[in-house]
Amino acid sequence: MYQDANYIDGTTRLYGIVGDPITQVRSPEMVTGEFVSRGINAILLPIHVPVDDFKKVSRNLKKIANLDGLIFTIPFKAEAMRLADRIGPQAEIVGALNVIARRPDGTWAGEIFDGIGCVTALKSEGHSLTGKRVHLIGAGGAGSAIGVAVAHEHPASLTVFDMDPERAAALAARINRVDPAIAVAVGPWIPGSTDFVLNASPVGMLDDARNPLGTDLIPPATVVFDAIVKPEETPLIRAARTCGCQTVPGRLMMRGQIGRIVDFFLEQKR
Amino acid sequence: MYQDANYIDGTTRLYGIVGDPITQVRSPEMVTGEFVSRGINAILLPIHVPVDDFKKVSRNLKKIANLDGLIFTIPFKAEAMRLADRIGPQAEIVGALNVIARRPDGTWAGEIFDGIGCVTALKSEGHSLTGKRVHLIGAGGAGSAIGVAVAHEHPASLTVFDMDPERAAALAARINRVDPAIAVAVGPWIPGSTDFVLNASPVGMLDDARNPLGTDLIPPATVVFDAIVKPEETPLIRAARTCGCQTVPGRLMMRGQIGRIVDFFLEQKR
Repeated sequence: MYQDANYIDGTTRLYGIVGDPITQVRSPEMVTGEFVSRGINAILLPIHVPVDDFKKVSRNLKKIANLDGLIFTIPFKAEAMRLADRIGPQAEIVGALNVIARRPDGTWAGEIFDGIGCVTALKSEGHSLTGKRVHLIGAGGAGSAIGVAVAHEHPASLTVFDMDPERAAALAARINRVDPAIAVAVGPWIPGSTDFVLNASPVGMLDDARNPLGTDLIPPATVVFDAIVKPEETPLIRAARTCGCQTVPGRLMMRGQIGRIVDFFLEQKR
Repeated sequence: MYQDANYIDGTTRLYGIVGDPITQVRSPEMVTGEFVSRGINAILLPIHVPVDDFKKVSRNLKKIANLDGLIFTIPFKAEAMRLADRIGPQAEIVGALNVIARRPDGTWAGEIFDGIGCVTALKSEGHSLTGKRVHLIGAGGAGSAIGVAVAHEHPASLTVFDMDPERAAALAARINRVDPAIAVAVGPWIPGSTDFVLNASPVGMLDDARNPLGTDLIPPATVVFDAIVKPEETPLIRAARTCGCQTVPGRLMMRGQIGRIVDFFLEQKR
């Protein structure tokens, strides 16, 4: 004999994370856990939307009357800008967003929290970026947010690598608009040239066995961060650990932004 | 400090119940409970779709790659017929459906389980309809399904009332196609004329204080069923209890079809 589930009913408010693929996401259990700990009857769902259907499906998800917010992950963070009626300050600089929330007047507010999440994760592990040399891999939605948030910490230098050199150059320009004193360059990592390596590309996600650095040899003084949340130990993180580096996994970036995202969802409802 | 929710993650499969309004539905906790008891990582959500948005939103819900099935409730059971590529035998007779399920080839199968749920609920409370006089209120999606399922139990007579007399007449004809021996009539309830009163109209749902019989005086030998699930004690059920009648609430109809619906969802996946 079954028992009714005690965590969902007709009055449960819906939130979702939209991505393609979706099975790697951690926010359903983390954001839902945060709702529960605050005594709110709400749940965050994994929503797998194929790339070709994103435009129509995302527009129609917003019409569900008991759905109050969405998180966007790979590959939708830039395209999601179209879904917000007002754009928060971080998203404005970055040109991408990872969260939209319904407002009482029926409009939607958007913001990006990836960068805040990454910096918060590094700080929670005792790492300050100020005055340091940083290499960032990936200049997409998450990478741009991380680049901008790192710039606000005033590192000495920041090099940006992306498969698309123009995208890397565009992010480099944004970084210098935040802080012109940072020595910004575009290009691949030069072994030993930086204190931090931050991966914000999808290389190494799920079954992808590649290390985005292209080498498993990393000087042990390097702090290595990976934005990927599944697997917990990406090929990059595994190589870094083998080399004796300190590592910060993507799960901590998610944790660093969960509270901020739930605050944002709830603030916009007022 | 929050804990991660342990009942949802990136691999959770999604199902939903679509209605307008939605807060009265019971299937989120009941169907999800059934999934959990079978060891399946799946959840059934309440999805509130405003009537004017139903066509577009329902079509786009089907494009969500990790959404495998939908239940439809008031007022969408007839319109939902368009969403199924193949129609089950009950839905074919009734002209409405309350469940669609994704098949491995990407098509969708539809069926209606309301009638089976009602008859199962009555039997579980020890009531046989065979040879009895039955009055049915409401000839919409749920009412039609109940009328057809009741016909299969071979009552002596069945009167059907609906605000729309043509809809009532159409259901009466369907009932007689199932069993020409049943004395079928269309019209309001005549006090004391029947052994059973079955309400399948929305009258009495949520804050609606009306009794669909139009009178609170019901002979105590009458068995009274109400398909409404919220409130548990509708004005009709309350009047029947006050009169000393035996009553069967809508929650038992839901319970009577939960297992069948989950079977249907899982069978279609194979």
